[in-house]
Amino acid sequence: MAQKPSIPKGTRDFSPEEMAGRNYIFETIRGVFRLYGYQNIETPAMEYLSTLMGKYGEEGDRLLFKILNSGDFLKQVNTEDVEQKNLGKVTWAVSEKGLRYDLTVPFARYVVQHRNEIAFPFKRYQIQPVWRADRPQKGRYREFYQCDVDVIGSGSLLSEVELIRMIDDIFKKLNIDVVIRLNNRKILTGIAKIINAPEKLTDITTAIDKIDKIGVEKVYDELRQKRLPEETINMLEPIINLGGDNQKRLNCLKEIIGITSDGSQGIDELQTIIDLTKQVAIKAEVKIDQALARGLNYYTGAIIEVQAKNINIGSLCGGGRYDNLTGIFGLSDVSGVGVSFGADRIYDVLKELDRFPDHYQDATQVMLVNFGEKESAFALKIMEKLQAAGISAELYPDAVKMKKQMQYAHKKSIRYVMLIGEDEIKTGLITLKNMETGEQVKNGLPELVKLIKIQ
Amino acid sequence: MAQKPSIPKGTRDFSPEEMAGRNYIFETIRGVFRLYGYQNIETPAMEYLSTLMGKYGEEGDRLLFKILNSGDFLKQVNTEDVEQKNLGKVTWAVSEKGLRYDLTVPFARYVVQHRNEIAFPFKRYQIQPVWRADRPQKGRYREFYQCDVDVIGSGSLLSEVELIRMIDDIFKKLNIDVVIRLNNRKILTGIAKIINAPEKLTDITTAIDKIDKIGVEKVYDELRQKRLPEETINMLEPIINLGGDNQKRLNCLKEIIGITSDGSQGIDELQTIIDLTKQVAIKAEVKIDQALARGLNYYTGAIIEVQAKNINIGSLCGGGRYDNLTGIFGLSDVSGVGVSFGADRIYDVLKELDRFPDHYQDATQVMLVNFGEKESAFALKIMEKLQAAGISAELYPDAVKMKKQMQYAHKKSIRYVMLIGEDEIKTGLITLKNMETGEQVKNGLPELVKLIKIQ
Repeated sequence: MAQKPSIPKGTRDFSPEEMAGRNYIFETIRGVFRLYGYQNIETPAMEYLSTLMGKYGEEGDRLLFKILNSGDFLKQVNTEDVEQKNLGKVTWAVSEKGLRYDLTVPFARYVVQHRNEIAFPFKRYQIQPVWRADRPQKGRYREFYQCDVDVIGSGSLLSEVELIRMIDDIFKKLNIDVVIRLNNRKILTGIAKIINAPEKLTDITTAIDKIDKIGVEKVYDELRQKRLPEETINMLEPIINLGGDNQKRLNCLKEIIGITSDGSQGIDELQTIIDLTKQVAIKAEVKIDQALARGLNYYTGAIIEVQAKNINIGSLCGGGRYDNLTGIFGLSDVSGVGVSFGADRIYDVLKELDRFPDHYQDATQVMLVNFGEKESAFALKIMEKLQAAGISAELYPDAVKMKKQMQYAHKKSIRYVMLIGEDEIKTGLITLKNMETGEQVKNGLPELVKLIKIQ
Repeated sequence: MAQKPSIPKGTRDFSPEEMAGRNYIFETIRGVFRLYGYQNIETPAMEYLSTLMGKYGEEGDRLLFKILNSGDFLKQVNTEDVEQKNLGKVTWAVSEKGLRYDLTVPFARYVVQHRNEIAFPFKRYQIQPVWRADRPQKGRYREFYQCDVDVIGSGSLLSEVELIRMIDDIFKKLNIDVVIRLNNRKILTGIAKIINAPEKLTDITTAIDKIDKIGVEKVYDELRQKRLPEETINMLEPIINLGGDNQKRLNCLKEIIGITSDGSQGIDELQTIIDLTKQVAIKAEVKIDQALARGLNYYTGAIIEVQAKNINIGSLCGGGRYDNLTGIFGLSDVSGVGVSFGADRIYDVLKELDRFPDHYQDATQVMLVNFGEKESAFALKIMEKLQAAGISAELYPDAVKMKKQMQYAHKKSIRYVMLIGEDEIKTGLITLKNMETGEQVKNGLPELVKLIKIQ
C-alpha cells in the first residue's frame, strides 16, 4: 500500500519559504502591470493540438505535452500504425489536446476568438504556468511560470516606451540593477541587405553577440569558420566594432545601413524610442545592441532583452514587436508588442544577490502560546482582536511543552510570541516576547498592538 | 492556414472583467488565510499516475486526465492489448503522469515527501486549478480552481474553531450571508450503531438531507423505498425530526445515541466546538446538522459545509477532519482538518446577488488623451507623476479621433480622462473629466492628484 512518494522529473514542489519569495515577485510584477493600465486574462491549461501544433517548429511540436483522450482513446487507432511505430499518426489518433507551451499562442487564439468583446488597443497581462517536455537540467524545468504583458492593436512606439518604463519600474521595485538591451528587426534586415547575405544573418548575430565574452578577434574567427567571405567580414567591421553611447551607435548605424529602407526605418524607430525615454526617469541602463536577435523569425520591429548587472544568469525578461501574431488564426494586420518576465530567473537573482526585502516571508506576526483549555479559550479572544487590527496571529493548537511551541515559532520565523497564563487573564497584562531580540514586555493589549504595528 | 479558434469543452477563457472578479475573490481568501498564519505551497500540475490512481474510486480513476509519455510512447505497448482494446493496460503503457484531480492527494504526498522540512502542526493553503474529465454541464467544468486550507499534525478542536472563524471572516469580507453546517462522522457512526444497520447509513443521510426540500413524510417514503425496516424508521424518528437550536439538538442527540461510544465522543466534540465559537464573534449562522455527510468514507471527525443564504446554489465551501490522509503514502497517525473554497460558485453568488464591491474592476483610473507627437511626449511626464502617486494611468497610444479614444475609456470603465493639449502645456492647467458624472475641472496636477485619490 505504502508508496515512496515523488514527483515527475522537471517539476517542482514549492515550500512556504519559496512561495513567499515567488508571491513577492508575482505581486510586484502584477502591481506594475495594473499601475500601467494592463488587464489580467487567463486561458485554459489545455488547448486543442490543432491550436498548438506547428507554431513552435518541429522541436516545439515534439516538446508539447499531449493529453490522452478520455474514454475509448483507442477508437481511432489503426493497429498497423502501432505496429509500425508511426508515432505521429498514433498521437493524432489518441490525443486531441495538449498543455500550453507558452502564453503567446493562447493569447493570439484568445484575441481572435474574442475580438468582438475586446477594447482595442488591448493591454493585457497573463501570469500562468506553461509546460514543455524538455530535458530537465539546472534552471530548466518542465513546468514554469511566465508573466507576459502585451499591447495588441496599435503600432505606436509609445507602447515600446511604456514597456521599457514598466521593466524599469519592476526591477527598481525588486531592487535589481539591469541593462535593457534594444534592437530592431529592421536593422538586422538592413545589415543582411548591405552585406547581401541574408541567409548568414543568424550566424552573424550569434557571433557578434559573443563579443563581450570572447573578444573581437575570436568573433572574426567564428565568422570565418561560418564561411563568410573576407569581403563581407570587412563590410561588417564597423558594425562589429560599434561602440559608444546610444546616439553614437545610431549615427554610425545610419552611415552603414541608412541607405537601405529597412535599416533607415529601424534606426528612426530606435531614435524615437530613445528620445521618448529621455522624457521620463529611467534608472536602468538602456543600451542599443545591434547584435540582439532573439527569435528572429518572430519579431518584426523592436527587440528587447533585460539582463541583471553584477550576475551572469541569462535574460530576466525579453520580447519585442510582432506584426502578424494573430494571422495564424485568421486575423491579419494586427500589430502587437510585448515582453515576458521569467519568475524563476528573477527568484534566483534575488536569492543570489540577497535582495529579498526584510520580512518578505508572509510569516505569522504573533503566536499565542497554548497553556491549556481555559487559557486558550481566553487567548482565542485576544487573537481575534489582533487579527481585527490586521496583525496575523495564530494560537498553538495543543497545550504541549513550552519548548516545543517556541521551536515551532522559531522554525516558522514568527517575530512575536504572546504568553497568556492565569496571571495574564487576571491582570489583563500580557507578556510579549520578541523572538529576534529576546526582549520581553508586559502590557495591555492596545499598547502591544501599537508596538507590533510600528515594527 | 487560418483555423477557427476554439477551446476544449469544459474549459474557459477568463476575460479582464471576469479575472477582476476572480482576483477579488482569491485575494480576499488569501488575505484571511495569511491573517490566520497559514502558509502557501504549490505542487506540480502533473503527478505520477501511481500517486493519483486508486485515490478517488473507480470513477475518479476514469476522470483523471492522463498525459501521453514523451518520445517513443509506444515502446511498452503490446499490440495485442491494442487489438483487444484493453484500455487499462494500454493506458499504463503509454502514460505515467496525470493532471491533479484535487489538491488533497498532492498535499498528502507533499507532507510525506517533505516531512523532515515541515514545521508541524503544518498550516498550509493552496490555490491552484484542478482538472477532471467530467461531462461538462452548467456550473461544472473540466478545469477549475480550488482554494484549500488545512492544519495537519494536530488533533486539537481549536483547529476546527479556527476554520469556522476563517470561513466566517471570508464571507463577511465578501459580503455573503452564509450558514455553516456542522456535523461529526462519529455521530453518524453512532446513529448507524443504534439502528444496527451501518450499511444503510448513506441512504439514511441522503434521505434526511432532503427534509427541507421535500418534507418529513417524503423522507419516510424514501427510507421505505430503500427497504429500511419500519422498526428502524421508528428508531430514526427523533433524529429525522431533530430541530431547535444547537444546544437542543446536542441534548437530544445525547439521549438517542449518547450510549454508543462513537456517538458520545462526536457529541462532546461538537459541544466543545460550539462552546469555543461562543468565545468569539461569528456573524454566520452556525448550525448543527445531523444529516450532513459529505464524502462519508473520507472524514473521521468534524464535517463542515457552507451554504449561501437567499440563493440556492449548492455549497460554497466544505471539508472536515481526516485522521489518516497521509497513510496512503506510508505516514500514519497524522490527523488533519481542512476545508476547500469553490471560487466558481462564490463568483456566481457575488454576480447573482450583485455583491461585488464598487470599483473592484482593476480598471485604469486615468486615461490621458493622445493629441499628437508633441502633446504625448508631454503627457508621458504627467503619466509618470500619476503612477508615482499610485494612480493607475495610461496614455492612449495613437493620436486618433477624440471620439474613438473616449469610447475606449468608456469600454474599459476608466473613471477619469485627462486632456493635455497645447493650451494645457502652456498654462500647466490640465483638464480632468469624470467619465461617470461628465463633470470637468481644470487645475494643476497636484490638485488633480488629490482629487483622484480622494474618490
